[in-house]
Amino acid sequence: MAALSERSGVPVPTIKYYLREGMLPPGEATSPNQASYDDAHVARLRMVRALIDVGGLSVASVVAVLAAVDDTRMPLTWAFGVAQHALPNPVTAIASAEGDGTSAGQAAIARVMEERGWTVTAGNPGIALAARVLDSYGTLGLEHLASVLPAYAEAAQIVAEADLAAIALREDRAERVESVVIGTVLGDALGAGLRRIAQEHVSARVFPSPNESDESEAGHE
Amino acid sequence: MAALSERSGVPVPTIKYYLREGMLPPGEATSPNQASYDDAHVARLRMVRALIDVGGLSVASVVAVLAAVDDTRMPLTWAFGVAQHALPNPVTAIASAEGDGTSAGQAAIARVMEERGWTVTAGNPGIALAARVLDSYGTLGLEHLASVLPAYAEAAQIVAEADLAAIALREDRAERVESVVIGTVLGDALGAGLRRIAQEHVSARVFPSPNESDESEAGHE
Repeated sequence: MAALSERSGVPVPTIKYYLREGMLPPGEATSPNQASYDDAHVARLRMVRALIDVGGLSVASVVAVLAAVDDTRMPLTWAFGVAQHALPNPVTAIASAEGDGTSAGQAAIARVMEERGWTVTAGNPGIALAARVLDSYGTLGLEHLASVLPAYAEAAQIVAEADLAAIALREDRAERVESVVIGTVLGDALGAGLRRIAQEHVSARVFPSPNESDESEAGHE
Repeated sequence: MAALSERSGVPVPTIKYYLREGMLPPGEATSPNQASYDDAHVARLRMVRALIDVGGLSVASVVAVLAAVDDTRMPLTWAFGVAQHALPNPVTAIASAEGDGTSAGQAAIARVMEERGWTVTAGNPGIALAARVLDSYGTLGLEHLASVLPAYAEAAQIVAEADLAAIALREDRAERVESVVIGTVLGDALGAGLRRIAQEHVSARVFPSPNESDESEAGHE
């Protein structure tokens, strides 16, 4: 286990914790208190770290998506569903909530889905999550922020087409499922990162002079 | 405080915690152990809950973005920077990391920024975050997932233009800063939600028959 820790850069107590939680399969026992670990263990450790550190997933979410990766009988579309539900806490709870379709946010999402011709199952976790954001804008008196919805939907379509095209690049079932899980979870972070770069670039054009556009309120130094 | 709890739906112990952490300004003292709270307190409580529950922020990140909302002398572009750094834990740590620009992910992000003509400061948290995702794809042997980058960059541009247009809809400095903070933090969740809807729709076209496309490697492991 010390060798596995050295190769992966993950501390021994953390590896023991992952073993207990079933995120890492046991090594092959070579003596009563020794086990050997192979390249597959190193690869699995890297995946766990990426899901937690970069994807921001909870341990429970990691366990769920790894089960999808390991279940060779699970259809690819199911694996997609599992990966889609894996969101950083506490957002997971929102995405799992069943909406009754009556909130303003839910109605707005239903409209945009109709406009774009998106047909999905009612349990798609994105519906509850997106609706909750729009409802929060309303509760906070920032309804004007909902004006971004058509543009966000167009962007989501572009991203989803790219996601599926990337997954289709691999033929092997196991590699496809890994691509679905990692691409879905880490893709959110990639999108959030690029959005921040684009925001700074665009904001320099929309609000060119910070000193000018911000002095409307008294008390500016 | 009991009345504030009732109006906002936030439990009294949680309100006390927010007061201690400085996320909620003290009420006006009406007697040695009584204070009165007004609409501003209810509004602030709603914002704190939205940032934590929907945005997935840590308490430390909420404190940071609320300081930006409350500092009337802070230029709008600075408030943007604070909001951009507020990401769900543990992603925050990645976004704050200084890259030396030499990883494959950092080189790929530099290229896409050049292609799109994006000019931003070196400390933009999106650069480190996006680069880290691409480096993770490489470490996991899923380099093909990096093929999504040009499409994601196009989507980020569309989203950022919509973000800035929405913020510009309000004239008041305080409302603009609130829009920047809430729109930046919750916008990630809105994008993640819509992406999941679009993914399910597109996947039905790309992988029309799950039984056919997934059983090729049954029993692979």
